[in-house]
Amino acid sequence: MPWFNKPTYQPRGKHCYVTGGSSGLGKALAESLVKQGAHVTIVARDVKKGEQALEGLKALASPSQIVTFISADLVDPTSSTDALIQCASLHGGQAPDYIFCCAGFAKPKFFVESTPEEMKDGFDGVYWVTAYTVHAATKMMVKQRRTGKIVLVSSFAGYTSFAGYSNYSPGKYALRGLADALRSEMILHNIDIHIFMPCGILSPGYEVENLTKPAITHKVEENDTPLTPEECSRRLENGLKKGYYQITDNLVTDLVRLRSNGGVPTNNFFMDTIYLLIGSFGVPIWRMTVDWEVRKARKGIQVEYEATGIYEAQS
Amino acid sequence: MPWFNKPTYQPRGKHCYVTGGSSGLGKALAESLVKQGAHVTIVARDVKKGEQALEGLKALASPSQIVTFISADLVDPTSSTDALIQCASLHGGQAPDYIFCCAGFAKPKFFVESTPEEMKDGFDGVYWVTAYTVHAATKMMVKQRRTGKIVLVSSFAGYTSFAGYSNYSPGKYALRGLADALRSEMILHNIDIHIFMPCGILSPGYEVENLTKPAITHKVEENDTPLTPEECSRRLENGLKKGYYQITDNLVTDLVRLRSNGGVPTNNFFMDTIYLLIGSFGVPIWRMTVDWEVRKARKGIQVEYEATGIYEAQS
Repeated sequence: MPWFNKPTYQPRGKHCYVTGGSSGLGKALAESLVKQGAHVTIVARDVKKGEQALEGLKALASPSQIVTFISADLVDPTSSTDALIQCASLHGGQAPDYIFCCAGFAKPKFFVESTPEEMKDGFDGVYWVTAYTVHAATKMMVKQRRTGKIVLVSSFAGYTSFAGYSNYSPGKYALRGLADALRSEMILHNIDIHIFMPCGILSPGYEVENLTKPAITHKVEENDTPLTPEECSRRLENGLKKGYYQITDNLVTDLVRLRSNGGVPTNNFFMDTIYLLIGSFGVPIWRMTVDWEVRKARKGIQVEYEATGIYEAQS
Repeated sequence: MPWFNKPTYQPRGKHCYVTGGSSGLGKALAESLVKQGAHVTIVARDVKKGEQALEGLKALASPSQIVTFISADLVDPTSSTDALIQCASLHGGQAPDYIFCCAGFAKPKFFVESTPEEMKDGFDGVYWVTAYTVHAATKMMVKQRRTGKIVLVSSFAGYTSFAGYSNYSPGKYALRGLADALRSEMILHNIDIHIFMPCGILSPGYEVENLTKPAITHKVEENDTPLTPEECSRRLENGLKKGYYQITDNLVTDLVRLRSNGGVPTNNFFMDTIYLLIGSFGVPIWRMTVDWEVRKARKGIQVEYEATGIYEAQS
């Protein structure tokens, strides 16, 4: 439970805005929200996938529920604002009550093998795809003197990072920086900020991610067990029901959370004290094993760069 | 001391590349490096300020030291790469040994009072101004099979954040995400990554920053004592000499560091254990007082937004 507020999450009758709502976590969450009686707007770039997802949502909704799909490229600030204005027009011009920013993707790749464009696209597709929506939504909410909830989706890789995530972790850390600044600043306007820090999700995005993932990154993650989007969404909503600020979907992330949270409101005081104790020893030990794996991979990379001509010819 | 490496910081005879080298921390650091016998390239956008700083450096250098200034806009990836190639040409085409990324600025402002352009410019001037240089430098170093050190400069506001820093903390957190990913990945290439987390620095940038800083942000920071650029630079180099990965310039940041480091190599094991113990209680308490200050400012902001027409007219 947060320090001074009672949890107030209750989607029934609320207008919920879900970016990335055509697949993965966003789709599963939109379905859950519709089942709970919310009005739901999903936003996605791909029209075909968005319309398919909308059909699925309509099949779950009662006639009184307003369920819509908007196609928008959320990496653009104007499109991000326009999408919000468009969906508000179906609700008397009012800003949505709950904003869930689930859009984003990962394409892990070694830093020195990436182009500046890949670095930038990787970053934009993690950070700005959410930050512009959060910006437009808070401006609209404050202007209309409305309260509400904004949920950012970061990642385990937004707490800590390792080889392969140089174009992904910066954006996920940046989202945490934005959430930390706004959790404080939005106290001024009674808007609740939450941030979700999931591990792997068994989504179409996860399959794409695995295509470019370096071998050492796979190795470090080999013991992870990604969750289905439905289970992941259930754990996110569970955290919201409890009023948690930083919501995780497994124990390991909880251990890292307390080593990386900068003193923000914790979740369960008793459990968090135990987690902090374990994490204080456990997280650095985990980190040492990761460094060890990377160190073991060094020789192989050097041989590969020699063969592929990434190194300059030896003189 | 880091886990597996002995500290190796020794600027004498090395080619040091300092972005933001015409003022503040970068200028003070460049002077110190020249005094220690390094070849120094400073990079800055403003030609006049850069040339002035260069004169100062030349006055400190012996005839055998190569000291240069390059004017470049480091928010652009091509300029960032070109600047490195240009300075390498004075050193037989070889990449610099040490890269210090001191360029950047802060313009704190409330989120809902900012435009998307201000958000983006704020971010670019913190993150990309460094990330493109780090990217170009590591590519050049790896290609040439050279080792070296890369120092990123984040901030106290890269560990934790509060009201006023929504266009600043995301970039400073992102730099920490980049450093965390690269500290791991660059084990593959024997390149050392360090990140500096200073508090306020008494520089021209600090004065600019204070012009746009909201009252509540000033209030939260009222007990801070900013350091001179020279003292700040001395503490950075002190951390490098000890081989620290995350370098701070005061005790409070050290307390926050251990709550926010995701298990990366710690500094002094004995002191860090004590800091972690204090920080585990102290950091959340500090955070509560900050929340309390923001909560107290709420009424004043609401009155102001009422008066300035940021709120829509009440119906």
